[in-house]
Amino acid sequence: MTERDQQLDRYLQENLENYIQETATLCAQPSISATGEGVESCAELVAALLEQRNFRVERVETPGNPVIVGHLSGASHRTLLCYNHYDVQPPEPLELWTTPPFEPTLRGGALYARGAKDDKGELVARLAAFDAVRAVYGEPPCSLLFVVEGEEEIGSPHMPQFVEDNRERLQCHGAIWETGGTTIDGHPELWLGCRGVLAVELSVETLSKDAHSGSAHILPNAAWRLTRALSSLKDANDRIRIAGFYDQAVALSEADRRHLATLPDMEKRLREVYGVEEFVRGLSGADLRSAVFEPTCNIQGLQSGYTGQGMKTVIPAVARVKLDFRLVPWQDPDDILDKLRTHLDREGFHDVVISKLGAMWPYKADDNDPLVALVRQSGEEVYGKASVVTPLLGGSSPVYAFHRPLNIPVVSAGIGYGMENRLHAPDEHIRIDDFLQGCRHISRIMARFDTLS
Amino acid sequence: MTERDQQLDRYLQENLENYIQETATLCAQPSISATGEGVESCAELVAALLEQRNFRVERVETPGNPVIVGHLSGASHRTLLCYNHYDVQPPEPLELWTTPPFEPTLRGGALYARGAKDDKGELVARLAAFDAVRAVYGEPPCSLLFVVEGEEEIGSPHMPQFVEDNRERLQCHGAIWETGGTTIDGHPELWLGCRGVLAVELSVETLSKDAHSGSAHILPNAAWRLTRALSSLKDANDRIRIAGFYDQAVALSEADRRHLATLPDMEKRLREVYGVEEFVRGLSGADLRSAVFEPTCNIQGLQSGYTGQGMKTVIPAVARVKLDFRLVPWQDPDDILDKLRTHLDREGFHDVVISKLGAMWPYKADDNDPLVALVRQSGEEVYGKASVVTPLLGGSSPVYAFHRPLNIPVVSAGIGYGMENRLHAPDEHIRIDDFLQGCRHISRIMARFDTLS
Repeated sequence: MTERDQQLDRYLQENLENYIQETATLCAQPSISATGEGVESCAELVAALLEQRNFRVERVETPGNPVIVGHLSGASHRTLLCYNHYDVQPPEPLELWTTPPFEPTLRGGALYARGAKDDKGELVARLAAFDAVRAVYGEPPCSLLFVVEGEEEIGSPHMPQFVEDNRERLQCHGAIWETGGTTIDGHPELWLGCRGVLAVELSVETLSKDAHSGSAHILPNAAWRLTRALSSLKDANDRIRIAGFYDQAVALSEADRRHLATLPDMEKRLREVYGVEEFVRGLSGADLRSAVFEPTCNIQGLQSGYTGQGMKTVIPAVARVKLDFRLVPWQDPDDILDKLRTHLDREGFHDVVISKLGAMWPYKADDNDPLVALVRQSGEEVYGKASVVTPLLGGSSPVYAFHRPLNIPVVSAGIGYGMENRLHAPDEHIRIDDFLQGCRHISRIMARFDTLS
Repeated sequence: MTERDQQLDRYLQENLENYIQETATLCAQPSISATGEGVESCAELVAALLEQRNFRVERVETPGNPVIVGHLSGASHRTLLCYNHYDVQPPEPLELWTTPPFEPTLRGGALYARGAKDDKGELVARLAAFDAVRAVYGEPPCSLLFVVEGEEEIGSPHMPQFVEDNRERLQCHGAIWETGGTTIDGHPELWLGCRGVLAVELSVETLSKDAHSGSAHILPNAAWRLTRALSSLKDANDRIRIAGFYDQAVALSEADRRHLATLPDMEKRLREVYGVEEFVRGLSGADLRSAVFEPTCNIQGLQSGYTGQGMKTVIPAVARVKLDFRLVPWQDPDDILDKLRTHLDREGFHDVVISKLGAMWPYKADDNDPLVALVRQSGEEVYGKASVVTPLLGGSSPVYAFHRPLNIPVVSAGIGYGMENRLHAPDEHIRIDDFLQGCRHISRIMARFDTLS
């Protein structure tokens, strides 16, 4: 470890409490993009955090929530982009939180709040890393560009157009994505890609109003109609029945297989965390890891008729389902949307209406990129363990929106541990030790980014 | 028409406004058995209405809501039982009511309120008929027994036991059921039976908590699991796949067929009222009427996962559906419940939990009973049109609970018109003219009931 690395580590250790406080302040401000709650105030908070650090901050309007862009020139014109988001998932179900989602609480060496990990803690870790680099180096060796958007949790609908429209402003030489960290046993984790997603709502109306269920022998039931349409989407073995659905899906490469073989076994932990009795398609062991190359059709939520206490003898007139399809490289969400419509029509479900809720394209990085090597090597230094490379994440992100137009490598580093941070769920949290290590890792990437050719 | 009939008619005409007001007062008191709202206060109102008329009123406690029993001795010991209920369906969806459900409103010659028809207006019509008979005859020719329960809309779970426990108190020679009226074109309608019902909730839990949908390739989704369990219940032609489901279902008799042939065509009206494009199994014309002899499996409501605004990328841990099976004579809801469990187990859905929400047995009257003849004849006198006999109603009622232990015929007479009163739906109402005619019909039944051998 160099003397400067030690100085970075020390700075971060000494100022840790301030950064936890900064994270808590940010988390106390709701910013639920699904409903709009608190989004505007949170954008202002983020802008202020960058301004305090002398970044040149621009608030860029989109048809949705604003994007906060912060730029700071360093010793080199080589620019590292940090992508984060200030919006969070809805906190429901509220009754399952130990402490309220927007009242950040420290307990057992961890900070609990909606957004603690996803993605406010990650954002503050980068600001902390930046502070450390500036404290140690005076002028940061590379230039920095923060892009903090407010619609990631609803599928980043305006990010692709934003990047297209702001190519000049966003010129850079590499990016660190919103999330990262270690495996459950502390190995630094690096991911090379993520799946795309297509989210839709299907709705069907069979009657102009609800009717008494005494007429169920003659009046068509919207919930039954939707159940049948849903059933047409998958076979008994969970294979998606939409014609052409798998046409653009890549098979696993040999390199992917090698990476997958080094990943920790997740079966036991998944069984513990989620109480799973049987995994999808009866999968177990190594197959649970390689299954990420299998695209999915997931029901996010179903609603029809009377769902209150007791019973109500009605035939529901309307039924709705929210679905998300996770797509592997190089499936195209627009293409899948067309194929879904064609499928429903062919199966006789012309009356099932599709509303698009969001779309993202899959992404996969070049295994041999120098930035990949830097993240890997610095991670191994900080964490003192071999890094683990995940070829493809199960989730989605708007990486594609940056990677394609800007032609840059995109990597991951951050503050998470395994699948334990309860993202999108009650009791989301970060561990303080993970936070500190994540700050150290990112400070090294920022300190050395200018040395990459 | 006899002179006394004319006097009955005149009395009811002259006092009509009071009875509409009495109905409105009763409807202004919510009494939603599904949630418990206002039930207790409504029971007190009903008791007061009977006490004002010098009935000997008893409030009989059950494990659920109390039953109000009113008895009044007439000139003969022959006793006519009037069954009604003071509870109503939940008023949702509220936004579809023209005026609020519990603010009774007169417009266009009709009274709009939740319960106006089902069943508060029907109850008041019987009280009005009684008042008329007493005014004209002095002492009523027969004895009267009012039984007004508070759990009909949740399946009358305690009525069978109540009747068993109170056989002595309930000794009588015939009963008028809660509902009745005319066809859409004004022919008095008489029904001979009704279907039974079994209502259940199916629930399934695949995870101990919701998970991120990025893991949908491995973590089992409760909404998908429930969708598949539901799909196993019916074939593509809407035939229920539960083994032995149809074993106890009677076929249509020749008498049933003759009655069905005289029933008005409902296709056009159903299309108008419910905006139906295609009926269940593509039925049309006369088949829409005979299909009531087909038992059903109806989805009342479906709920799983995130159903709010926008989207949420979750795998739901839990999914629920409320179902009702309408049963024809002589299917037994307890037997069907056993067969449903066996079916789910056989199909591999051991994890789908069944909760029983309610059960009622089917009922069918003897076509040749003297009380049936009295109701028919007096109806034809009042309405001046041939009566129409419905062999089996699509809905359910606890008729069986009275018919079997008390060994009495049970008939129908009342204030409805066709399927137009919007029972269980927004804008439930009664037409004032129908109300008056219904009062007249019932007053004749009360006046002559003692003459039946």
